[in-house]
Amino acid sequence: MSKSRIEAFSDGVFAILITILVLEFHPVAGRPGTLLHQVTGQMPLLITYLTSYFYVGTLWLFHHDYFTHVKRTTTALNILNLILLFTATLINYSMSLVAMALRTLNHADMQVAFIVYDIVALLISLSYWLIYHYLSTHPQLTDHGITSPTQRIDPLISGLIYGSSILVSWLNVWIAGVLLLLGIVFHFIAYLRMRLPAMH
Amino acid sequence: MSKSRIEAFSDGVFAILITILVLEFHPVAGRPGTLLHQVTGQMPLLITYLTSYFYVGTLWLFHHDYFTHVKRTTTALNILNLILLFTATLINYSMSLVAMALRTLNHADMQVAFIVYDIVALLISLSYWLIYHYLSTHPQLTDHGITSPTQRIDPLISGLIYGSSILVSWLNVWIAGVLLLLGIVFHFIAYLRMRLPAMH
Amino acid sequence: MSKSRIEAFSDGVFAILITILVLEFHPVAGRPGTLLHQVTGQMPLLITYLTSYFYVGTLWLFHHDYFTHVKRTTTALNILNLILLFTATLINYSMSLVAMALRTLNHADMQVAFIVYDIVALLISLSYWLIYHYLSTHPQLTDHGITSPTQRIDPLISGLIYGSSILVSWLNVWIAGVLLLLGIVFHFIAYLRMRLPAMH
Amino acid sequence: MSKSRIEAFSDGVFAILITILVLEFHPVAGRPGTLLHQVTGQMPLLITYLTSYFYVGTLWLFHHDYFTHVKRTTTALNILNLILLFTATLINYSMSLVAMALRTLNHADMQVAFIVYDIVALLISLSYWLIYHYLSTHPQLTDHGITSPTQRIDPLISGLIYGSSILVSWLNVWIAGVLLLLGIVFHFIAYLRMRLPAMH
Repeated sequence: MSKSRIEAFSDGVFAILITILVLEFHPVAGRPGTLLHQVTGQMPLLITYLTSYFYVGTLWLFHHDYFTHVKRTTTALNILNLILLFTATLINYSMSLVAMALRTLNHADMQVAFIVYDIVALLISLSYWLIYHYLSTHPQLTDHGITSPTQRIDPLISGLIYGSSILVSWLNVWIAGVLLLLGIVFHFIAYLRMRLPAMH
Repeated sequence: MSKSRIEAFSDGVFAILITILVLEFHPVAGRPGTLLHQVTGQMPLLITYLTSYFYVGTLWLFHHDYFTHVKRTTTALNILNLILLFTATLINYSMSLVAMALRTLNHADMQVAFIVYDIVALLISLSYWLIYHYLSTHPQLTDHGITSPTQRIDPLISGLIYGSSILVSWLNVWIAGVLLLLGIVFHFIAYLRMRLPAMH
Repeated sequence: MSKSRIEAFSDGVFAILITILVLEFHPVAGRPGTLLHQVTGQMPLLITYLTSYFYVGTLWLFHHDYFTHVKRTTTALNILNLILLFTATLINYSMSLVAMALRTLNHADMQVAFIVYDIVALLISLSYWLIYHYLSTHPQLTDHGITSPTQRIDPLISGLIYGSSILVSWLNVWIAGVLLLLGIVFHFIAYLRMRLPAMH
Repeated sequence: MSKSRIEAFSDGVFAILITILVLEFHPVAGRPGTLLHQVTGQMPLLITYLTSYFYVGTLWLFHHDYFTHVKRTTTALNILNLILLFTATLINYSMSLVAMALRTLNHADMQVAFIVYDIVALLISLSYWLIYHYLSTHPQLTDHGITSPTQRIDPLISGLIYGSSILVSWLNVWIAGVLLLLGIVFHFIAYLRMRLPAMH
């Protein structure tokens, strides 16, 4: 099976996902003359949107690079890819929760929102690891190895960060939020580190 | 006519459909401090979303595999494909109904929602059968037969499951829901069974 | 300039447009136990959705066939295509108006909604005619003529139907609605008639 | 790395962005019989939608033309492209603000909305300039120079227009709106001027 349609379908899902995120970052109809107050009050929401946007963007970069090395697809890879895209769509849900919690700054709500986002991030890392594992055990599908020793520890590190975020959320919800943010930034750094040799 | 645009357009519709489903699975703005209660109360909705997502995913897998064997498209195939995509978009509507009914757990509403979903699933199966029938009677459009004896009974089996779900809904609405779920799972199993010989 | 991106972009817009139309055809949260009443009351909305879906579908079929004959694109064709896609997105707005008017069946509202839909349909026909005219006066962009004598009268006929619908709306709003429906059905028939020779 | 997926992903984001803009230009459910009043009252919103649509359209045209000359992509170009698409998605947010402000015509709200739109437009121009600068300093990625002397001043001119719009908004909010509109029209004119030699 050719890989063109799995790429087109995935590009479509990533493109829609990354674009509809902006619909969450939305002004709410209020009394005339309150727009400035409302816009400045949406700074936390802007940061949430910015983070989620570049999270999906990083996921697309990884997906793009993995499939650059894929020569053809199989039924198992198609299904693993559907699972991966499913976990990615949940970012929309968890971003909604964080946006709602940041509007009221209620601590209990923020904890719930951050934990759900952490769990979604863990599921996404797991689904990427499954694709990665499948491709490295089916070398006939790829042009050459897409693995490197450091990458094998990466899912473990991000798992530790998101796990800490969940545990810490019972102590201090803001630190939990910062750890969640660090986890997402870590993916981007891991991506850049993986790509650096190819840049030279 | 080349088949590239019918694939691109269909991939686009499937990608949008599967991604906007997540918009139904959405937190509703409530009083601060009630987010945990709301998230745990959305478990039935999560199952509905999960099911609908993998239903659309399975439809994409079938579509992908059928068109792998299609060499070129015709006006009739373009129109049949538009009908197929139309029935698929109705999943969004019927999932909305199920989500609304599962929020209140009102039995009359659940029956209506399950029956509408059953009817939509029957229409989808019918439109896939039409494409399948058209392609098998126009062998010049495909590289080789895309049929196998077992597949001819599959639409009949799924029709029986969805039909039973409709009838049973007057007796017990929960069994109707389980039968609807089984119908969708059956499509996925039918897909896997069709693909298994190709995996070896 | 290659034509692949103009096709991909247009396919994307058509795919999104045709899929988000279903979001208009949506259950509204009501009291538990009223879902059956609500679903049966949405039959006019279902017909509106069905009509608009196949209207956009027919526009895609025309677009697909025109660009099958296009060998390469130009800046002017890109801009004309953006205008065409703009008029097509307005279907979403006019379908919303019709859906709102059909919920209350208020005659004044129905007249406004049908007239707006008629105007949008006229703008769409005009933008297709512009593309068609541009391509027939730039034969170096196409592989061979994409015109036929009958097609030259088609925009005139559909213009007459939509124009009558607007005028008749002051006499009887239901006949205006039927004329609007006929105008859309006419496009589909015009498409089939254009394609028939190619089917043999 | 091949450039096909970065184009497909970008086309997807542009197509979704340009299509969901129409969702902002939407009738609001009102009392029966008030639809005419509502539709005529939405003229400023229609102009906002029209402007934003052709703004995104012009951005797509520039993107399309730049990447026509790109032979292959790099990690840095992928990331710059994600930043560019991010700034473009913010058009949806700023258009929402303008639409809300134009419904009430509150001067303070209009100033906020126009300033936010100006800032978004400045960020978009900056991100295009970054891509443009990257491509002109990495000639090995393109087939030939995609620059011309006049284009180097264009970002400066549009920066001046949007900057004036921000400053003028404290004196007269309507002139600020007109300057914002001029800035967007300027992009289209700059695009046409760049393409004119290629048209001959």
